[in-house]
Amino acid sequence: MTQTACYFISGSPSCWTVMLALAVKGVPYDAIRLSNTMGDQKAEAFRTINPRGTVPVLVDGDVTVRETNAVLAYLNAAYPENPLFGSNPAETAAIWQIVQEAESRYRTPIGNITRPIFRGKTSEKADELNEAIVPVRTDLKELESGLGERDWLVGTHLTAADLALYPAVMQLLRGATKDDASLLDLRVAPLAEYFPVLAGWCNRIEVLPGYDSAYPPHWRDD
Amino acid sequence: MTQTACYFISGSPSCWTVMLALAVKGVPYDAIRLSNTMGDQKAEAFRTINPRGTVPVLVDGDVTVRETNAVLAYLNAAYPENPLFGSNPAETAAIWQIVQEAESRYRTPIGNITRPIFRGKTSEKADELNEAIVPVRTDLKELESGLGERDWLVGTHLTAADLALYPAVMQLLRGATKDDASLLDLRVAPLAEYFPVLAGWCNRIEVLPGYDSAYPPHWRDD
Repeated sequence: MTQTACYFISGSPSCWTVMLALAVKGVPYDAIRLSNTMGDQKAEAFRTINPRGTVPVLVDGDVTVRETNAVLAYLNAAYPENPLFGSNPAETAAIWQIVQEAESRYRTPIGNITRPIFRGKTSEKADELNEAIVPVRTDLKELESGLGERDWLVGTHLTAADLALYPAVMQLLRGATKDDASLLDLRVAPLAEYFPVLAGWCNRIEVLPGYDSAYPPHWRDD
Repeated sequence: MTQTACYFISGSPSCWTVMLALAVKGVPYDAIRLSNTMGDQKAEAFRTINPRGTVPVLVDGDVTVRETNAVLAYLNAAYPENPLFGSNPAETAAIWQIVQEAESRYRTPIGNITRPIFRGKTSEKADELNEAIVPVRTDLKELESGLGERDWLVGTHLTAADLALYPAVMQLLRGATKDDASLLDLRVAPLAEYFPVLAGWCNRIEVLPGYDSAYPPHWRDD
């Protein structure tokens, strides 16, 4: 049997996306957690696995893959059940478009908002953060109205598009529910109040088999 | 018959990648050139096609796709002949890894080198540019040794990996052969001297059917 391992940092949205994809594909794997102080990523042992020092990295038998979206494409090719990229070319286009924009429109701007909150800089950066949330809220509204009555972002099944965005939305909510965040005008939490359709979409992801094992370990502690 | 159009900016490596992919797939298309002064991209007419205002954009019948890599994935799904993402999961992984890194490791750093050269700032930015070429040269050496005796970057056929990187290499060469660039220590041109294996790889791409129609129009003028 193929040995599969996923190197990850707890709470990294892109790592979480890959681990959810492994869950959806039903692939058993060892989750190998690196510290997010960068020490582990710079260590020689990890550099032999990924010279770039980035996570996530998937090792599946003889194949080692870095880059979140490359891992998703690989998993979909290696494990055809529960296709992640749709059932026709138009769906494939819509899904990849969201997957490609996940970094620039969600993970990066949301990280820029939550990082100062997690580091106790909420008050001193309040103006900046209240400004940074504006384009993110616009995109969340677009998702909300795009979903409408449907269960998933593209087509009639869960796809890579859902898996790419869900962890970033969760990271934003985690930041927005810290005590200090009440100083800000984020208007995202509780999600059910501000974005009820997205809240329902999150609930559907949260009952997926394997969801619990992909959940960021250090989020359980607080 | 489906109407296909590709919106592009002349000389944009990512647009060139998509146009080469259309050529490889044998899809006839209208090439719709936007000016690279941003005026066309911000115009209402284009915003109705792509609200983000980015190029390339492919319109193929009812389907409109933005994001270079999403367009490649779409083309491969819609036109299965001459597969761009390999013939087994390991190849798919290797190809997508290169495609995903094309922006951060090639297009962006190479653009940062060529832009000042094209704008007549070579002399004042010489130190900066001589430093910026170092990681790019390291990656080119990795490509050179990775290719070795093989014809294409991954597997035995041309793939999206080749199409993703070729235009960026060509843009670097265009910058490196401007008169002013002789002030710099780029050591990339002539390519056959510094990277003979890559030079052979470029030659193989340059004889592809449809190569000429994808060539940046304004490069012909000088």
